Amino acid sequence: MKRLPERGRIGIFNRSYYEDVLVVKVHPEILDQHQLPPGGRGRKFWEARYDDINELERHLQRNGTVVLKFFLNVSKKEQKRRFLERLDRPDKNWKFSAADVAERACWDQYMEAYEDAIRATSTKHAPWYVVPADDKWFTRAAVAAILTTTIHSLDLKYPEVTDAHRAALAEARQQLESESDH
Amino acid sequence: MKRLPERGRIGIFNRSYYEDVLVVKVHPEILDQHQLPPGGRGRKFWEARYDDINELERHLQRNGTVVLKFFLNVSKKEQKRRFLERLDRPDKNWKFSAADVAERACWDQYMEAYEDAIRATSTKHAPWYVVPADDKWFTRAAVAAILTTTIHSLDLKYPEVTDAHRAALAEARQQLESESDH
Repeated sequence: MKRLPERGRIGIFNRSYYEDVLVVKVHPEILDQHQLPPGGRGRKFWEARYDDINELERHLQRNGTVVLKFFLNVSKKEQKRRFLERLDRPDKNWKFSAADVAERACWDQYMEAYEDAIRATSTKHAPWYVVPADDKWFTRAAVAAILTTTIHSLDLKYPEVTDAHRAALAEARQQLESESDH
Repeated sequence: MKRLPERGRIGIFNRSYYEDVLVVKVHPEILDQHQLPPGGRGRKFWEARYDDINELERHLQRNGTVVLKFFLNVSKKEQKRRFLERLDRPDKNWKFSAADVAERACWDQYMEAYEDAIRATSTKHAPWYVVPADDKWFTRAAVAAILTTTIHSLDLKYPEVTDAHRAALAEARQQLESESDH
């Protein structure tokens, strides 16, 4: 919420409030450090979070923000290849995190959490785009196509110039042209 | 949203997002500068805003923030007295604003907007307290009573000291006591 772009601007979130229904769903013990009010961590708890997300996004949409959500779907096999590449190539070592490999053990739970979240928060006002992501060129082309199509659909225009503004432009031109060049 | 206190902290808002259903409801022409998506400004528009507010406050309450809302109800007669005092007393002149007096002409519309908003957003999870405010001593006593009663009801406790922490405290005491005083 703190980082949402103001109306008329574009914001890009790499990860977002969706973390609050993903990593914490796979590792609910993280929630114990969040000083939440007492209460269960069952279906109702997660549904309340999905609702809050849907309501926030509806609020944004109603007030003129277009929300586009992309799930970049990397296969388990491709993830392994990328991790190995980070180990093998010195120029990619910096990107390697042992924690990422450890999390791979929870692959199935993550898939379930993704599925639940995408199903519960794919709404008319803010749908999810699930984009195959094993081939980066495809991911980029697909996301770019969705972005540009959406931007064009907004029918954006340059601000209209008023007569007063036009007069000011004419005056500025005159002033510039009357300048002595020496 | 940007200024909401994090969990475990207290935030005080003097005016808030309720402005978005009050002054703009009395003067809807202000909305024309907000670059909102096209659409009517009828009952549905305002109900969507009340909904958004209720959903935000429910989200906060679910996640451990207590929301207390006070409407300080000043009578039209008392408002006049306060404005005149700001004009009469040099040490209060700084507080005077001609715009405030101009807005007084819309008193009835403001009352209607307040009533509508309070009715629509007084929920179980975040009720409104309408506090008589012609006498400041009364307002202060009433608000303080509600605040302290609410804080006590939270049954807050100092963090529990672990054995490890207790040992560290004992060590610190020993170190302080063993200091040479000269």
